[in-house]
Amino acid sequence: MKNHLTPLGPKADKATVRRHNLSLVLRAVHDAGEATRAGVATHVGLTRAAVSSLVEQLLEYGFVTEWGKTSSGQVGRPGTVLKVARTGPAGLGVEINIDYVAVCVVDLAGTDRVRLVEHVDNRGVPPSQVLAHAARLAARAIGSAAEQDLLPAGVHLALPGLVTGGTVRQAPNLGWQRVAVEGLFAQALLALRPAHRALPVSSDNEANAAALAELWFGAGTEGVRSFLYLTGEIGVGGALVLRGELLRGAHGFAGEIGHMVLEPDGPLCRCGARGCLEQYAGQAALLRAAGIDADSGVRGVTDLGRRARRGEPAALAAIEQAGRRLGLVVSGAVNLFDPDAVMLGGAYRELMEWLAPAVERELALRVVSGLWTEDGKRLRAASPLGDAARGAAGVIVREVLEDPAAYAERVGE
Amino acid sequence: MKNHLTPLGPKADKATVRRHNLSLVLRAVHDAGEATRAGVATHVGLTRAAVSSLVEQLLEYGFVTEWGKTSSGQVGRPGTVLKVARTGPAGLGVEINIDYVAVCVVDLAGTDRVRLVEHVDNRGVPPSQVLAHAARLAARAIGSAAEQDLLPAGVHLALPGLVTGGTVRQAPNLGWQRVAVEGLFAQALLALRPAHRALPVSSDNEANAAALAELWFGAGTEGVRSFLYLTGEIGVGGALVLRGELLRGAHGFAGEIGHMVLEPDGPLCRCGARGCLEQYAGQAALLRAAGIDADSGVRGVTDLGRRARRGEPAALAAIEQAGRRLGLVVSGAVNLFDPDAVMLGGAYRELMEWLAPAVERELALRVVSGLWTEDGKRLRAASPLGDAARGAAGVIVREVLEDPAAYAERVGE
Repeated sequence: MKNHLTPLGPKADKATVRRHNLSLVLRAVHDAGEATRAGVATHVGLTRAAVSSLVEQLLEYGFVTEWGKTSSGQVGRPGTVLKVARTGPAGLGVEINIDYVAVCVVDLAGTDRVRLVEHVDNRGVPPSQVLAHAARLAARAIGSAAEQDLLPAGVHLALPGLVTGGTVRQAPNLGWQRVAVEGLFAQALLALRPAHRALPVSSDNEANAAALAELWFGAGTEGVRSFLYLTGEIGVGGALVLRGELLRGAHGFAGEIGHMVLEPDGPLCRCGARGCLEQYAGQAALLRAAGIDADSGVRGVTDLGRRARRGEPAALAAIEQAGRRLGLVVSGAVNLFDPDAVMLGGAYRELMEWLAPAVERELALRVVSGLWTEDGKRLRAASPLGDAARGAAGVIVREVLEDPAAYAERVGE
Repeated sequence: MKNHLTPLGPKADKATVRRHNLSLVLRAVHDAGEATRAGVATHVGLTRAAVSSLVEQLLEYGFVTEWGKTSSGQVGRPGTVLKVARTGPAGLGVEINIDYVAVCVVDLAGTDRVRLVEHVDNRGVPPSQVLAHAARLAARAIGSAAEQDLLPAGVHLALPGLVTGGTVRQAPNLGWQRVAVEGLFAQALLALRPAHRALPVSSDNEANAAALAELWFGAGTEGVRSFLYLTGEIGVGGALVLRGELLRGAHGFAGEIGHMVLEPDGPLCRCGARGCLEQYAGQAALLRAAGIDADSGVRGVTDLGRRARRGEPAALAAIEQAGRRLGLVVSGAVNLFDPDAVMLGGAYRELMEWLAPAVERELALRVVSGLWTEDGKRLRAASPLGDAARGAAGVIVREVLEDPAAYAERVGE
């Protein structure tokens, strides 16, 4: 979300201005956590009267609630504190990954209110079946959300592949090519909830969603605005956040760090090229190097962590090797981008303790600015709050914050 | 330059608004090439009367001139065409590179009005001496500019290294460490022109300046808004332009593509690491591989081109090898960034004919989105207009366009 906390120019018509200002006020309350009408007015540069009128509408729509000092019965008086509502509008995120499906409902304040995860091997399963499974999980989450008076404004899908225009163009690790995920998912969800209005469905790459989660709910809240995000799943996903915005690239395909080359004549990758990072530092490669079943997924990673903790040489050597390779590619990316930080998520987060020293050695050696030597903290584990399902739900929440009137109109129909 | 062609919000004071709108109108005329007052008013969303008043001031300051239909004597009537002035404000760019110094004066319309280049080996020469030499060249350019009624608003230095806060932190190929280039240059220039007011001096990396030249005067003018720029000099410089803006990175060090690693245990690089791209595809490495004196600089590159044109196997093999290596790194960068295009500048531009096929082979094989297979045009030679000295001069011109009042005040003192 761009932080355009400035009133519109003089050319916009009145209804547009009001719509825009409604979002302005809602986001001001959201970003502050709690705020008075006077505080909001100062922050957004509108008059106290204009803010009061906008707040009335937000209260009526149910986007904000009043807190404190209400026992005196003087609701609406200057000191009353506004917060975003914990009921009503919500975001629904669905992450479809190689070996699990996760769904998450996030409220307007960014709190994780429903979370369901199912471990399942999606490789070789027809896409329609995987999406139908995800839709069942989503329907259950919508039900749990309704019990908490939350009504998702839409669904955002996060998938491990190149995603544009509602279609997974390519997801090598799932074996998908040109799958119209939004349409298939919407259809499956509607079949499960025939009596309900269809929810708008959008989609993106899972590393992008995880990076947005990190921005909105994790390191971003501590002021880290530019970072490279790597997620060690079966593949190696990547995303770049620059000054608080996700870099999508000219065609929506930015962030494919897993296919940066380490050895031009190395092992064949699912992408068709040879020697990609994924073949050395992906979860399967890592497990194989440690003598663990390469297909054992999340359980395998936990096992690897256990072995490393016990000091098993094969486990430590496998992680150190992957870390070195990761460090070679990450230092190249840091030389290109000069980010504030590099976040390691997914399987890497669990193995951080043994992985980080190897990555940091390469960073210290290879980052030209030398800045990465002076402050080891630039390499960090991704926040546990920063998963793709939650980021995907956050995308929907941001849409509501950007245009609350649109949600109110849709729900009011 | 951000293209903020919108009037300011209601909170700004009157003087600030006028100052901002003065720039708005000047940039509208600049971007259009020529424009009527009415056209400008429509474009920027101000009243015709406000625009006329602002134009009067710009005419008075000498930033714009009136053209056409003036033979009738009705200066200022509706149809009169406005253009930016070809005299008055200008930018002065100075590129200090390993084996040459170039200076360039650009007028407000972006035309290259003075250009001086001197080939000289700057390696091992004390920085103060190199900067004094550059100042002498700059003083000569200022003299030639004055003969054309052009008065530079400032000097921007472009240097092959990590540059921040007026200091070259590190320029391995020059052998410089922590050189306060702005101060040294300003001092040297003032010593040459004691009777004149000191010009403001700023500085940046040369690849950044070259990429900005490409954006402002080259491919950017044809709608290429996101690109990776590589310049083959003795080192390999790089810069990234994303949606019309140079990516500077969190600490100002983005774009160091020359130090992305190809072989972790490869030859030692000047940066202290091993196996950097520069060691395989830098100008010296390229010349050495072709059996040409690695220190022969620009002449060596011309010689290499001549040999390739004659079909000499050693020359062709050297370029093909460098191209493959370049392709490996560039495809990684494309996977990360997903730019519209990749531009090859400097020595690469001269060798494009033989270099491009090798680079394109790797791009076709390794870019995950596959988009780079479908359209070979994404790899292009940098524009001959896109050199660093010109880009540096452009930086100063943009500053004038962003705040013409500041220039007028300074000159009027």
